[in-house]
Amino acid sequence: MKQSQLFTKTRKEAPADEVSKNAQLLIRAGFLHKEMAGVYSYLPFGLRVMKKIEEIIREEMNSIGGVEMKTSVLQNKEIWEKSNRWDDTIVDNWFKTSLKNGTEIGLSFTNEEAYSNILKQYIHSYKDLPVYPYDFKDIFRNETRSKSGIMRGREFFWKALYSFSKDEAQHNDFYEKSKVAYKNIFERVGIGSLTHITFASGGTFSRFSHEFQAITEAGEDIIYVDEKSGMAVNKEVYTDEVLSELGLDKEKLVEKKAIEVGNIFTLGTKFSEPFDLSYTDEDGKNKHVFMGSYGIGLGRLMGSIVEILSDDKGIVWPETVAPFQIHLVSLCTEESDVKKADEIYESLQKQNKEVLYDDRQGVRAGEKFADSDLIGIPLRVIISPKTLVSDSVEVKKRNEKEAKIISISELLK
Amino acid sequence: MKQSQLFTKTRKEAPADEVSKNAQLLIRAGFLHKEMAGVYSYLPFGLRVMKKIEEIIREEMNSIGGVEMKTSVLQNKEIWEKSNRWDDTIVDNWFKTSLKNGTEIGLSFTNEEAYSNILKQYIHSYKDLPVYPYDFKDIFRNETRSKSGIMRGREFFWKALYSFSKDEAQHNDFYEKSKVAYKNIFERVGIGSLTHITFASGGTFSRFSHEFQAITEAGEDIIYVDEKSGMAVNKEVYTDEVLSELGLDKEKLVEKKAIEVGNIFTLGTKFSEPFDLSYTDEDGKNKHVFMGSYGIGLGRLMGSIVEILSDDKGIVWPETVAPFQIHLVSLCTEESDVKKADEIYESLQKQNKEVLYDDRQGVRAGEKFADSDLIGIPLRVIISPKTLVSDSVEVKKRNEKEAKIISISELLK
Repeated sequence: MKQSQLFTKTRKEAPADEVSKNAQLLIRAGFLHKEMAGVYSYLPFGLRVMKKIEEIIREEMNSIGGVEMKTSVLQNKEIWEKSNRWDDTIVDNWFKTSLKNGTEIGLSFTNEEAYSNILKQYIHSYKDLPVYPYDFKDIFRNETRSKSGIMRGREFFWKALYSFSKDEAQHNDFYEKSKVAYKNIFERVGIGSLTHITFASGGTFSRFSHEFQAITEAGEDIIYVDEKSGMAVNKEVYTDEVLSELGLDKEKLVEKKAIEVGNIFTLGTKFSEPFDLSYTDEDGKNKHVFMGSYGIGLGRLMGSIVEILSDDKGIVWPETVAPFQIHLVSLCTEESDVKKADEIYESLQKQNKEVLYDDRQGVRAGEKFADSDLIGIPLRVIISPKTLVSDSVEVKKRNEKEAKIISISELLK
Repeated sequence: MKQSQLFTKTRKEAPADEVSKNAQLLIRAGFLHKEMAGVYSYLPFGLRVMKKIEEIIREEMNSIGGVEMKTSVLQNKEIWEKSNRWDDTIVDNWFKTSLKNGTEIGLSFTNEEAYSNILKQYIHSYKDLPVYPYDFKDIFRNETRSKSGIMRGREFFWKALYSFSKDEAQHNDFYEKSKVAYKNIFERVGIGSLTHITFASGGTFSRFSHEFQAITEAGEDIIYVDEKSGMAVNKEVYTDEVLSELGLDKEKLVEKKAIEVGNIFTLGTKFSEPFDLSYTDEDGKNKHVFMGSYGIGLGRLMGSIVEILSDDKGIVWPETVAPFQIHLVSLCTEESDVKKADEIYESLQKQNKEVLYDDRQGVRAGEKFADSDLIGIPLRVIISPKTLVSDSVEVKKRNEKEAKIISISELLK
């Protein structure tokens, strides 16, 4: 993509009311537009990053048997009354609206009810189990305050998978597989080493749930990390009893601020009972389906990557989720030099490299470098009249200090 | 995908309140789940079709310079007051809700305001123009009645592109290109020959807008088609004056029911004025940006394809948007035959063919064929003990009557 043809531009300042580092950087670098507190539009760069994250999550979900679908945003009151979650005194972050005839409807804040209701129609026998449907969708939560940028939005893009198993054993098998898939996801997006599987409070059907907590000062949670095993415990269950149960030594745990970038939860029959989601087992007996939920907020994950990996000059994208792989910065002004730079851009395009080409004229070199650091593409390639004299370019990785000169033919290899 | 592992199943009946043919067929075949009138969830088959349509539209939009982004669903009242479209007496199909502090917000029913507001921040000079941002997003319209299945939803998935040009000449250039891209889209999804570019009412800045109307009895519009040129006129502008202006002979026009599957509209400065979206031209003068809008409802397009191409046995998907290319139907029960069928499935998978494999045991052949016709995959391949005797399979296209026997090696070529 040629920067001269892109409508977004970097900005010196984020909006005054934007206090989070992730949204400040993403707005200044042209990834996001702020619509209101907790609500953002994704500009072309931002959408490119989201789509990369989405594709990584999709691959990992498919690899453990996930089947993608897409549930509606508008929600039928009757369905939520079954699980007793319609009432605003029970769930306090609903957005609700109504049809012309006065019927109240809600905006999806989670998916357990929609999935239980849909699957009820198709699951009858143990032969129909297990199944692992999931979707990517916009989710709406009426947060009282929303000051963490895209780490806690009122509107956010989400992956939710639900597992439907015939019993706890079949459930546990998938639950363990999901841990591996989640670990892979956080590794692949570049924050694996800072993301800890964390014991958190469970429910009626499990002693614990598991959160994936990424260490960052911007986090809203406190966790206690055993740095040797990588295991962690959320403050909410940090008691002597729990530590001894998990075989953790209090002396060796380190307190950290962290953000929950994913979570997996054993639901058991909490939702299959009210929806009478049941099946006939091998012995002809009727049993309730055993469920689990597996969520990841994509915006939150993107925000966490920015919080964790940025430096004082701007964002530092890992290659796997960067909007482009190469930032080709041309300092050429003479027609013959510009032509050579254009040719390099076209050669890289032909090799299917994802290249952002700073072909802007009338912009100072210093400004181009500052923009490039702010946007954070992994590899910067500078073409200038000086480098062209020796048929070469200057290359520098965003996360390294040293630049080096390589020949154009080496670049194109 | 193995049908034995899929949670959806075909159904004998659609819900009693579902009166539209498109939703009846799509629900019975397991593409959709009805949440309420005008609101549907997309099951795995349905999402596969939507993603194919989405990718075709994306390619065509990118080919004319479109840049993808994603605007928010939740909308700020202040922005809509600028264009005077917040008031319910002016726009009567808003869904509105509110934040905890009582601030009213709306759910996106269109995108002109969001785009004008965002672009205002980035467009300053004639050098910043033209630009063609677009997005795919869920759109919400509070329709009083909603009985046309996915052809008129209260929640629907939409592509909207907006053009921002420096003047009418630059606008017209893109407007003509968009006609070609739209024609390509309807050709590629398989309803090109039945889709007519149709003159419809314009606005302050253009005599006409252009609709792409697909002929179907399920359509909500009346158009008059000149079958020789393919050109058509919407009833709303069907006057002697307009016909003479367009050089059309009333005697040669045929009245048809049709559904609007796309539309393009010259907005002029209707939105750039209230948003003060302006730029400095070559002479240093300040001018308002000249805009156009280009919409396609993906659900409506999918519903139209079903309405137009289905027969009395079920859906008939064109190859380009079918959920799978091949429906491999196995009638094998003996272990050695089942193994051969599995091998054929795996070979086709390895060739990256999109195959739905009906490997279900205990389902009658007649039922498998009826399911296959209902689901509507373009090519059906039957493997039975009988065909395996001669190392062959029976192949039949969904839109043809004749089946033929070919060797397995020919199939795999």
